[in-house]
Amino acid sequence: MEKHALLYEGKAKQLYTVDHPNMLWVQYKDVLTAFNGEKQEQLLGKAQLNNDISSLLFQQLSMENIPNHFIRRLSETEQLVQKTTIIPLEVVVRNVAAGSLAKRLGLDEGEPLKQTIVETYYKDDALGDPLINDDHIRLLELVSEERLLTMKRLALDVNHLLIKHFNICNLKLVDFKLEFGINPEGMLVVSDEISPDTCRLWDLDTNEKLDKDVFREGTGSIGEAYQTILSRLKGAVEKGI
Amino acid sequence: MEKHALLYEGKAKQLYTVDHPNMLWVQYKDVLTAFNGEKQEQLLGKAQLNNDISSLLFQQLSMENIPNHFIRRLSETEQLVQKTTIIPLEVVVRNVAAGSLAKRLGLDEGEPLKQTIVETYYKDDALGDPLINDDHIRLLELVSEERLLTMKRLALDVNHLLIKHFNICNLKLVDFKLEFGINPEGMLVVSDEISPDTCRLWDLDTNEKLDKDVFREGTGSIGEAYQTILSRLKGAVEKGI
Ligand SMILES: Nc1ncnc2c1ncn2[C@@H]1O[C@H](COP(=O)(O)OP(=O)(O)O)[C@@H](O)[C@H]1O
Ligand SMILES: Nc1ncnc2c1ncn2[C@@H]1O[C@H](COP(=O)(O)OP(=O)(O)O)[C@@H](O)[C@H]1O
Ligand SMILES: [Mg+2]
Ligand SMILES: [Mg+2]
Repeated sequence: MEKHALLYEGKAKQLYTVDHPNMLWVQYKDVLTAFNGEKQEQLLGKAQLNNDISSLLFQQLSMENIPNHFIRRLSETEQLVQKTTIIPLEVVVRNVAAGSLAKRLGLDEGEPLKQTIVETYYKDDALGDPLINDDHIRLLELVSEERLLTMKRLALDVNHLLIKHFNICNLKLVDFKLEFGINPEGMLVVSDEISPDTCRLWDLDTNEKLDKDVFREGTGSIGEAYQTILSRLKGAVEKGI
Repeated sequence: MEKHALLYEGKAKQLYTVDHPNMLWVQYKDVLTAFNGEKQEQLLGKAQLNNDISSLLFQQLSMENIPNHFIRRLSETEQLVQKTTIIPLEVVVRNVAAGSLAKRLGLDEGEPLKQTIVETYYKDDALGDPLINDDHIRLLELVSEERLLTMKRLALDVNHLLIKHFNICNLKLVDFKLEFGINPEGMLVVSDEISPDTCRLWDLDTNEKLDKDVFREGTGSIGEAYQTILSRLKGAVEKGI
């Protein structure tokens, strides 16, 4: 397998074509961004951490038969995925009040939610990824009615599985964001990445933040936080869980 | 009928108790506010305009059997309504792109929408009346599942009826906001007001704005705009429509 042309460069990853037209070579970047790219920083080793974490988590999804784009890890900072047509929606699932939800509804950060919240954001950097509802999605024709339902159901399935898995790692899954794509066979699959860039993860005992909020809020070492996540995930794998 | 204690004073209206415990005396105010109260102005005659316009529109709702709080107009600036427990949701219905929808989705103002949009906003001034989805409504337990469905259906019924009625007045109903309450019999009824403060209304031929946007944007005379709406509504009534 060889990587060819750079197809797209995002804030956190580069996508390259490969010989096989249905696959993409993903190169994770040593860059951290927040607030829609307003805050940006180089972080040596971050590509490796997120590539490893995302690979481990997508493997968990595959083991539970949740359709996803992941094929295999290629190197410390690279992975091979199915080429998909990304649906321009960010699906956010929340178990605990934090971030924009706490702000929107006036909740205290850390308050457990009596019911799981699913939100959809329009993936459009120029518009600041606004929260939208099902009527907005219909108007913009972002995805069919049926696929939207499937996306929400899959997001809740992923939530269920990740809560369990992170729990083994002594981590609390506060919330996370998923992207979905349509693969070459026309199937809806979880795409993009699942990492501390896209999940809020707190230590189960201390509520210490071990995710991108450390960077957003400028508290502590982001490298150490992400390394903690990776070590605990590897620990779970070694215990054969 | 006599008015007693001031029960509540909002930005646009005062509510007084009356002898009958199931009724409220609404006094419209000569005040205009926008941007969550940030912009505010006295406008002599506004109370009368909105009281008259709202009375005429609620009468239209009653004629079409849409449950609502309106009992009768009491004076130039006052009306009698059923006392309700207001559900802290603003239901917005949109036919044409404008205001926050145009901004949120990157649409051009004036673009007709291929499909009617219903939005729900959490009625909370301190939070800036944020857009929320059904999961947020469930979490906050703002209203039961069944009543939420009824609210949305009624809002679409009101839209249908108001589009037709304003069309007779050579006016385009761009969007509007409804509030709902539970009346003493436990019935869900359209409450609050329906006026150029809560509807975007454009001249059908010229697209001239004849609503609160004239105030928000500081263009032209708001008194003349509201007077135009009232005159045309009265014209429709006189023609017996
Ligand atoms: N399997 C896939 N096929 C095609 N595109 C993908 C796939 N997975 C993720 N992407 C897209 O790759 C792009 C680069 O990722 P990233 O650097 O995170 O971008 P962004 O700056 O938009 O967050 C994103 O637009 C993402 O949606
Ligand atoms: N029938 C009703 N019973 C009780 N309260 C009502 C009724 N109709 C409207 N209200 C409430 O009256 C209050 C005053 O109205 P307004 O001045 O427009 O307030 P606001 O500043 O919240 O917009 C609002 O809180 C509104 O929800
Ligand atoms: Mg990304
Ligand atoms: Mg009001």
